[in-house]
Amino acid sequence: MPAPNPPNPMKTMQVVYRVAGAASEIEARARAIAVEQSIEMPPGAVRNERVMREILGRVEDISDDGAGHFLVTIGLALETTGGEAGQLLNMLFGNSSLHPDLELVDLVLPGEGGPYFGGGPRFGVEGLRRLCGAVGRPMTATALKPQGSTTAELARLAGIFARAGIDVIKDDHGLADQGSAPFAERVGAIQAEVDRANRETGGRTLYAPSLTGGPRRLLAQLSAARNAGVRAMLIAPMISGLGALQELAGEGLPILAHPALAGSARLAPPLLLGKLFRLAGADAVIFPNHGGRFSFAPDQCLALAEAARRPWMGLAAALPVPAGGIHLERIEELLAFYGRDVMLLIGGALLEAPDLESAAQDFVERVAAAGSRT
Amino acid sequence: MPAPNPPNPMKTMQVVYRVAGAASEIEARARAIAVEQSIEMPPGAVRNERVMREILGRVEDISDDGAGHFLVTIGLALETTGGEAGQLLNMLFGNSSLHPDLELVDLVLPGEGGPYFGGGPRFGVEGLRRLCGAVGRPMTATALKPQGSTTAELARLAGIFARAGIDVIKDDHGLADQGSAPFAERVGAIQAEVDRANRETGGRTLYAPSLTGGPRRLLAQLSAARNAGVRAMLIAPMISGLGALQELAGEGLPILAHPALAGSARLAPPLLLGKLFRLAGADAVIFPNHGGRFSFAPDQCLALAEAARRPWMGLAAALPVPAGGIHLERIEELLAFYGRDVMLLIGGALLEAPDLESAAQDFVERVAAAGSRT
Repeated sequence: MPAPNPPNPMKTMQVVYRVAGAASEIEARARAIAVEQSIEMPPGAVRNERVMREILGRVEDISDDGAGHFLVTIGLALETTGGEAGQLLNMLFGNSSLHPDLELVDLVLPGEGGPYFGGGPRFGVEGLRRLCGAVGRPMTATALKPQGSTTAELARLAGIFARAGIDVIKDDHGLADQGSAPFAERVGAIQAEVDRANRETGGRTLYAPSLTGGPRRLLAQLSAARNAGVRAMLIAPMISGLGALQELAGEGLPILAHPALAGSARLAPPLLLGKLFRLAGADAVIFPNHGGRFSFAPDQCLALAEAARRPWMGLAAALPVPAGGIHLERIEELLAFYGRDVMLLIGGALLEAPDLESAAQDFVERVAAAGSRT
Repeated sequence: MPAPNPPNPMKTMQVVYRVAGAASEIEARARAIAVEQSIEMPPGAVRNERVMREILGRVEDISDDGAGHFLVTIGLALETTGGEAGQLLNMLFGNSSLHPDLELVDLVLPGEGGPYFGGGPRFGVEGLRRLCGAVGRPMTATALKPQGSTTAELARLAGIFARAGIDVIKDDHGLADQGSAPFAERVGAIQAEVDRANRETGGRTLYAPSLTGGPRRLLAQLSAARNAGVRAMLIAPMISGLGALQELAGEGLPILAHPALAGSARLAPPLLLGKLFRLAGADAVIFPNHGGRFSFAPDQCLALAEAARRPWMGLAAALPVPAGGIHLERIEELLAFYGRDVMLLIGGALLEAPDLESAAQDFVERVAAAGSRT
């Protein structure tokens, strides 16, 4: 393999893998990863000079990570992604996901990476706050459940939540386009109910329906949602595609990204949910909170929240949305833990309260009160 | 939790998870999975009788799988998927993917499941054979590489492969819509070259470009491919969405499914690549062959191939396509291993041969010869 010239650093991204293996073999393994994630063929058989110089991945760093693991940094040409978020994921981990000895842990993009992928969140933390009139405080969210409910039942719930002043009401991610509450019917009825509540209270609750399906179905749902006056959307990028998130982010509505299927990967959650979902345009990123039904550790939750909202290539901050079995008694603890730039998502705990209306009001008031103290 | 009535078995799918845990806790854990993958809220708070009876998942079986693991079978209502393949994946593993203690290992659908999801492969093994004039024999495939090549370079390669009589030429899955060979330009030039070769030889080589991107981009690529006279497509369903595969399957062209990002999941490959890709309409399923660059075991490869092609709900068989570092000397061994209903995909090994033309011809002739002996 001839030694390639140094790349233009403005055009290279650094991809960091954690690889299991022996020290004696890690250099060869690192080179194999660099090939697999770029030209995917024997380098000796490449006849195009430019491909060898600019496209072939190169090993930029190998460092011992302890316990028989190494952190391997591969430089890949930004142009191989074509600026498309799904293809970015393909370049980062497409074939290497099929190898059990490595995890994808981080990505460093050059400054031009932000605009190249579309500019990230169009609303972000401050945009969502502005839309909901939630300036200077943490935000509240809840979910319409369970799947199998009728449209009327879901709309009634939405009305209660909106009258209580919850900032964002999203479809449960299990609501798709089922017979029990077909998408267009459901979304129209719920948005109408939320609009009615907003008019009554002077509030600005957003409703985010869950968009699902292949290209034609997704676009038809987008169109139906617009016609219903919807002003936010929910999508699960690991099911519908990171590319779908990227396209929807350009539609002028804020987007919540759901982590369904995201946990099955050997793909670090702070990178996937925090950085990549944000890069592809998610304005708010839902993730499993620590101490609930899921097993994310507090450190991991905080790392994810920080990845979503810290300064990065001039992109707007995405709002971290911890969720998954949060009980009402944890509101103050979690706001202290995450800080003010957060949206707490409480679903089941509201629904099982003896008095739904007052539980929802309690949620809203305590978040506002805790926020004014931070 | 009130005891629900037995479900109509025609409307329930059985989902099998392998769960790590203690015998004393497995029943509670199984019930928690059944809730998480259906109503996703405390059952005691559900007020709709029908939801409790027909939508709430139920534990149908728990069996000891040895070494601190259990096989847990959950019955889920088929209607929760709305017949949409992405939502099926969401129901099978959306939130549970976020739990590290379980893997998704199998799915049993009622007979009506086939048509409900669109009917599976529209061409399948026999349809692909018919299109390529490959009746009664194994098939051959190769890939256009490397990414970063110019359109002219890729078209030249395609011409050589088509003249050698390779049945299917696919884009490398790293080819998307990059500046080095933009989709519409590349696909038009390659299809024209393949058409020219077919006219010269009387052959019927198919070219399958890689379709990528979110909904609008994917549909624009589909349209450009049609305009270029393309008669097959490649898609990576775990990147673009299983729902995108399902929709593309209805477009009248055979589809190869690529496993990019599919290996990162705790989701058994025979289920994901064999059954679910087939159910969503893949006519051919590419997977990492044993003994190549990837670590799939021979048993796993065979289980995957069988899942793709054995009789299932009346669906057409999908063609198994082992790939990933297959060398020419393994042709006879692999045809003996997989049998006649297979398509061998050899990419890099052809490209590094001293004489590409004769290596490609050798590939075609030896597959035909081995096939006539089976």
